[in-house]
Amino acid sequence: MPKVERSADVIWEGNVARGEGRVTAETGTFDALPFSLPSRIGQAAGKTSPEELLAAAHAGCFAMSLAGELTQAGTPPERLHVRATVILDEVENAGHRIVASELRASARVPGLSREDFDRAVDQADAGCPFSALVKASGEVTVRAELES
Amino acid sequence: MPKVERSADVIWEGNVARGEGRVTAETGTFDALPFSLPSRIGQAAGKTSPEELLAAAHAGCFAMSLAGELTQAGTPPERLHVRATVILDEVENAGHRIVASELRASARVPGLSREDFDRAVDQADAGCPFSALVKASGEVTVRAELES
Repeated sequence: MPKVERSADVIWEGNVARGEGRVTAETGTFDALPFSLPSRIGQAAGKTSPEELLAAAHAGCFAMSLAGELTQAGTPPERLHVRATVILDEVENAGHRIVASELRASARVPGLSREDFDRAVDQADAGCPFSALVKASGEVTVRAELES
Repeated sequence: MPKVERSADVIWEGNVARGEGRVTAETGTFDALPFSLPSRIGQAAGKTSPEELLAAAHAGCFAMSLAGELTQAGTPPERLHVRATVILDEVENAGHRIVASELRASARVPGLSREDFDRAVDQADAGCPFSALVKASGEVTVRAELES
């Protein structure tokens, strides 16, 4: 697999408390999504945030990793649902840090045993670059269930 | 500042090579953005990816941090432009990892000296939780220019 590079742009206008940013994807998939300090640390009020974007990245990465593990085992998924919750908190002597990402997954995989599912979940977490990213300075938890 | 939690959801359907995911923000700011393995590692073809979402998060975090430092110094910015480029690459014995995030910033700040700008940029990088996240296992570079 070749090296992958992906970019995004932010325009910020005004001071930190009353100003606002807009974030745009290089691919055009999202455009000028608003974010601000009050909506980042308080009520989100329909605005995104760096933490929400990381949750989206981690959920996407884990879902693809899990699809990969299940496909490789000969039991590709019909459907996966992954929710990631990213937590930003104050860390002593370090200011604010991403301290955790909590993953919840449910999977519809015909004919898969619970044991093989648990193995695929562990391998997906071990292989997902975003799980590794968060684990380097925080915690990743995974709760996964197999739909019956 | 209180603890911040932000979530996003992914639905993935199909095997890893031909299936597709859709990522949705809890705030509703973005909804069912498509991504897939071929568009993640090859031509993006108008689809997003975990790496693009992280670039958006890092650019947004750094822009807000820089606005914060400049505001605190008594010279709030009129306008900041920040681009982040996230790099996913193969690491020996570790598989694929987020190895770097490259930040490029330009700032319009009336009356600010180059020296004070450089200090604000350094402090913004040191304080931004996403710079810390990437630095725990990879590299962050910052190139910044002050518009004249």
